[in-house]
Amino acid sequence: MGDTRTKTRTRTRTRNIPKQVNETPFGVFLWGGPEKFDRRRDVYNELSTNPMFAKDTGYHTSLARKDAWTKAALQSRELIEIKLRKKWPHRHFMDAIRMTDWFLPVQPQFRIFMSNLERQMSDEQKAIWVPKAERFEIFGCYPQTELGHGSNVSGIETTATFDRLTDEFIINSPTISSTKYWIGGSGIWATHGIVVARLIIDGQNYGNHLFLTQLRDLSTQQLMVGVEIYEMGPKSFQGMLGADTGALRFNHVRIPRSQMLARNAQVERSGNYIKPKNLKHSYGSMVTVRALMAEITGHDLLRAVSTAYHYTTFRKQFRRDREQDAEETTVFDYSSVRHRLLPLLAQGVALVLVGQSINEAYQEYTKQMLGGDTSGLEDLHLQTVGAKVYSTEITGRGVETCRIACGGHGYSGLSGFGRMYAHAINAVTYEGDNYVIGQQVPRAILKHYKNKSEASLPSIAYLSLLRDERTPQPPADLTNPTSWSLRSVQEWALGIRQVNLVREHIEDTSRGRDTSYTTHSLTMAHSDFTYWRGLWKVIDAIANVSFAGPMKSLGLVFSLSILFNPHHPSLTRHLPLTTAQYSALRDAYQSALDGFADNHVATIIDAYGLTEYEMDSALARADQTPYEALLDGAKRSEMSGEKMSTCGL
Amino acid sequence: MGDTRTKTRTRTRTRNIPKQVNETPFGVFLWGGPEKFDRRRDVYNELSTNPMFAKDTGYHTSLARKDAWTKAALQSRELIEIKLRKKWPHRHFMDAIRMTDWFLPVQPQFRIFMSNLERQMSDEQKAIWVPKAERFEIFGCYPQTELGHGSNVSGIETTATFDRLTDEFIINSPTISSTKYWIGGSGIWATHGIVVARLIIDGQNYGNHLFLTQLRDLSTQQLMVGVEIYEMGPKSFQGMLGADTGALRFNHVRIPRSQMLARNAQVERSGNYIKPKNLKHSYGSMVTVRALMAEITGHDLLRAVSTAYHYTTFRKQFRRDREQDAEETTVFDYSSVRHRLLPLLAQGVALVLVGQSINEAYQEYTKQMLGGDTSGLEDLHLQTVGAKVYSTEITGRGVETCRIACGGHGYSGLSGFGRMYAHAINAVTYEGDNYVIGQQVPRAILKHYKNKSEASLPSIAYLSLLRDERTPQPPADLTNPTSWSLRSVQEWALGIRQVNLVREHIEDTSRGRDTSYTTHSLTMAHSDFTYWRGLWKVIDAIANVSFAGPMKSLGLVFSLSILFNPHHPSLTRHLPLTTAQYSALRDAYQSALDGFADNHVATIIDAYGLTEYEMDSALARADQTPYEALLDGAKRSEMSGEKMSTCGL
Repeated sequence: MGDTRTKTRTRTRTRNIPKQVNETPFGVFLWGGPEKFDRRRDVYNELSTNPMFAKDTGYHTSLARKDAWTKAALQSRELIEIKLRKKWPHRHFMDAIRMTDWFLPVQPQFRIFMSNLERQMSDEQKAIWVPKAERFEIFGCYPQTELGHGSNVSGIETTATFDRLTDEFIINSPTISSTKYWIGGSGIWATHGIVVARLIIDGQNYGNHLFLTQLRDLSTQQLMVGVEIYEMGPKSFQGMLGADTGALRFNHVRIPRSQMLARNAQVERSGNYIKPKNLKHSYGSMVTVRALMAEITGHDLLRAVSTAYHYTTFRKQFRRDREQDAEETTVFDYSSVRHRLLPLLAQGVALVLVGQSINEAYQEYTKQMLGGDTSGLEDLHLQTVGAKVYSTEITGRGVETCRIACGGHGYSGLSGFGRMYAHAINAVTYEGDNYVIGQQVPRAILKHYKNKSEASLPSIAYLSLLRDERTPQPPADLTNPTSWSLRSVQEWALGIRQVNLVREHIEDTSRGRDTSYTTHSLTMAHSDFTYWRGLWKVIDAIANVSFAGPMKSLGLVFSLSILFNPHHPSLTRHLPLTTAQYSALRDAYQSALDGFADNHVATIIDAYGLTEYEMDSALARADQTPYEALLDGAKRSEMSGEKMSTCGL
Repeated sequence: MGDTRTKTRTRTRTRNIPKQVNETPFGVFLWGGPEKFDRRRDVYNELSTNPMFAKDTGYHTSLARKDAWTKAALQSRELIEIKLRKKWPHRHFMDAIRMTDWFLPVQPQFRIFMSNLERQMSDEQKAIWVPKAERFEIFGCYPQTELGHGSNVSGIETTATFDRLTDEFIINSPTISSTKYWIGGSGIWATHGIVVARLIIDGQNYGNHLFLTQLRDLSTQQLMVGVEIYEMGPKSFQGMLGADTGALRFNHVRIPRSQMLARNAQVERSGNYIKPKNLKHSYGSMVTVRALMAEITGHDLLRAVSTAYHYTTFRKQFRRDREQDAEETTVFDYSSVRHRLLPLLAQGVALVLVGQSINEAYQEYTKQMLGGDTSGLEDLHLQTVGAKVYSTEITGRGVETCRIACGGHGYSGLSGFGRMYAHAINAVTYEGDNYVIGQQVPRAILKHYKNKSEASLPSIAYLSLLRDERTPQPPADLTNPTSWSLRSVQEWALGIRQVNLVREHIEDTSRGRDTSYTTHSLTMAHSDFTYWRGLWKVIDAIANVSFAGPMKSLGLVFSLSILFNPHHPSLTRHLPLTTAQYSALRDAYQSALDGFADNHVATIIDAYGLTEYEMDSALARADQTPYEALLDGAKRSEMSGEKMSTCGL
């Protein structure tokens, strides 16, 4: 099994890298439906034809940081003009920022500033501020994180003290560690910030609330009295060059009482504090961003995979069969490349498709919430936390795996992989460190297991298995490779593994152990299960369309990849198999990979159809081979032709 | 077991980050003996007090690429002056370049240019060229890699055709893919290159040889006739800013016959080709660099671990025990941090100490080789390949694990982790892609297994286990955690795992399968075993010194970390354990980690004693807390205080 396939001769593949967005039914499906596909095309058509947004792999990375930022600020202005002229919805604008690929200073405007105005302001407040933000009369940022506190939001030290005499709040940074840090868009660009601060009334601490605080004069850009802002300097990997990320200190800055965001809690003129009706609102902001991340993170991975696919199907190196007269072998045909890229392709598609359904659940919840029903929040919260941890771990490491699979040229800045990694890996930390927020999944598991309420949340219904002392028997002969393609077997295996992990976690907890490390595996395994179920649900729904075949092949690769080659080493411990069973799983996986590679991968890459503009890599050009593009890139290097003397040496 | 320890109260630790190199017996041991320690101190004292080499975390990364390079060129000149003035040996010079931490254009001079002159030139040639290089009258680079061929050196297309009429070689780049690419120091700096090209005489191809080729005029720096050079542009992650890496094309460039490096093969005036006496010489260059890498790579990991240690013992976040009045917990005390950092500390020390012994073996071999004895080459080759793959995989991923364990601030450019990663992860690709060169280990294993000659190479003597059908019984009760601290048990477990992997590999090979993916695990497992043996050998040799205790604790963490949490997921499949045995291993590992963390880690970090200059991180300053240093860094950002108008917007 697999023996003949691995000997397949190297084929000559036709390079097929589009220069425009091509619409096919399969493509529309992979991009998440007509609305999303059309939005991508709109944004693509606008940006790719505007010289201001010309892509030039690696160009930005040669500039001084300040010059790179200035370019991003100019692009922001241009985008604002386009949005207003074309009456683009916010989502178009946000997608356009993503397509520029380096975070613009205007990025927080809708992603976090306006979404908070919308959800946290009273109707009266919204009537004043939302139109200002929509018309870009004010530019927003979201000062939450401090030097001393990130994931632990309750540790925030900035204070907002009510001054009854003047009917104002006094925003203050009492310590160095209370300096707001990592505040995107605040370094130079933003005029207003939604400051997260401890509300203090008459010496009493009411916990964190949001305060709309003006940072800069609207016409002169002078900092407001008492506001101290620094740009925080470079990021690792030259990431986020387009973002003026700031450090903010407040020295008794006064804002009117009307600028505390008052949809939920309020402070009355007298200083009387009115509690929020529903404490669950505090989840809101994080859930919003994480639901968004669940949907879009996979695209970052798919872009890296597509780029690597185009390069590895071009590059030839060594003769696998050591026949000196044969042509060298296409790199993509080595198992060392297939085993690295193909599971990532399957996982990337799974992240996007399942992420879309998580985001849809979020949209649905938002509607219910505005109607006063927050009953769906716990399930949604669990879904978005799991998706955030899972999608960012797979994507962050996956992008780098793609780069390394491309060998030496992957390390060239012209490959674009460095930029992709810089903008993917930070997601394992922001919006909550994965090791920290991932603990919420086991916490929910324990709670519902103890309360015997697992049936109320579909994603942890598997806990009922724990209540049975007997280990369920596998539904087929596991020493037969074909058994592993049965979904009943996959579900059994994922379930057994998960239950073993939960059992270990319960034991550790009962022994008072610190489980902050081991819970990461548990959350990843939980999400394996969630995404496995979610992906097959999507595939089942398209059983009769023309591309059902490729999607089933992809589903099989996804399923076996999470069993065979899991994202966390210790997971393998928790699926006990005999040597013969393991060997059959290995054969099944190899066979799934080969079938996928030989029959469907090109179809999927073509259907996804990333343009050269979107990939922005010398390794994936429509009209140049990677070697031509790399040489061309060198010729265009600003340092080419320099001599010691011309460098002032 | 471990239950009480994990509840240990957060301690206040004294920050102890040195501003100078402090000598202690333990420190001298960790740095590899008095000679290496003194060299480090010499270089440190010179650079840290010279304003030209001032470290300023993140400063370089804000410059335009060309300005950053110019600074590196100025530093190169300064270093040359210091070397000549202080009569530094080459190794001092090379270590000084490493201490500047961003690859200088003069880096290839001794690392690869001169070492090739020394080993590949005839005595007559050496007499002419070595003094020129030593006096820096010429600057060298090593054009081997081409756009189209990296790991597969035999695919190189550049030709050196003998012209009998003029007694010259004609160096030529016949195709785009034959463009020399990734050539460090060649973009602007170098005057000469040792070009790897196919020797052609009378139309016959004699394979790759080395040709000393002048690239630029020594006084004007004008390119020589027919030489075309471009600087290849930025690298991923803003890596190697100080290196002017070049793309070179040769258009029928003529060099005298005397400039073919002629220690081994020669071409006579008549065009007669004299074969090298010993074909094994071709290994030489790669073995040299890999032996060097084996020793120094671990230091990159230890620097990241030290930086992360200093930060995580400062940072506090959340209250683990949820007692609202208690101080927040020091981040280092969470198992999520300990499980990530401590195995890396142990592995880093193992890489350095075992790497030193591999490098000593190389020095020993070089002596023998110059005396005509090359019998030790195979063993040495196997050792250096394994060490290269193993040390670069662990270090590359380990540095990034340290960064991520530091949370959000790890992503700041001021943390220094981005630079560390950019300069560590490329090593998995250069000097041979790890997936490609790693295949040499299983190849040697198969050969000696078939020839029944494993006893001749100590590092694969374990193959004799394969000849016995019976699986050897564990030497102790594996359900007892204390058994796992026995070396006999560790050896048994590593042996079993390795034998299972070899068995699978033999089966795959006999079925004609492509093993290019699976062999990576095999090579890593093989090296686990090699390093395990090597580390204990070093520790046994110091059984009576004062720091034997900490080293034994470290050895235990290393041993159990490679068993429990191996570097490659699929390894866990190959050590079949019952649930009770696995649980005991887990307990033993947890206990080893806790004992190490609570009693020895601070001792080891202090003994290693990296100075703030060497770490160059805002997270590890002698006189500032990380928060103070991060805020200070923001204040010094060249973008702080800018307004839209001052940016020309």
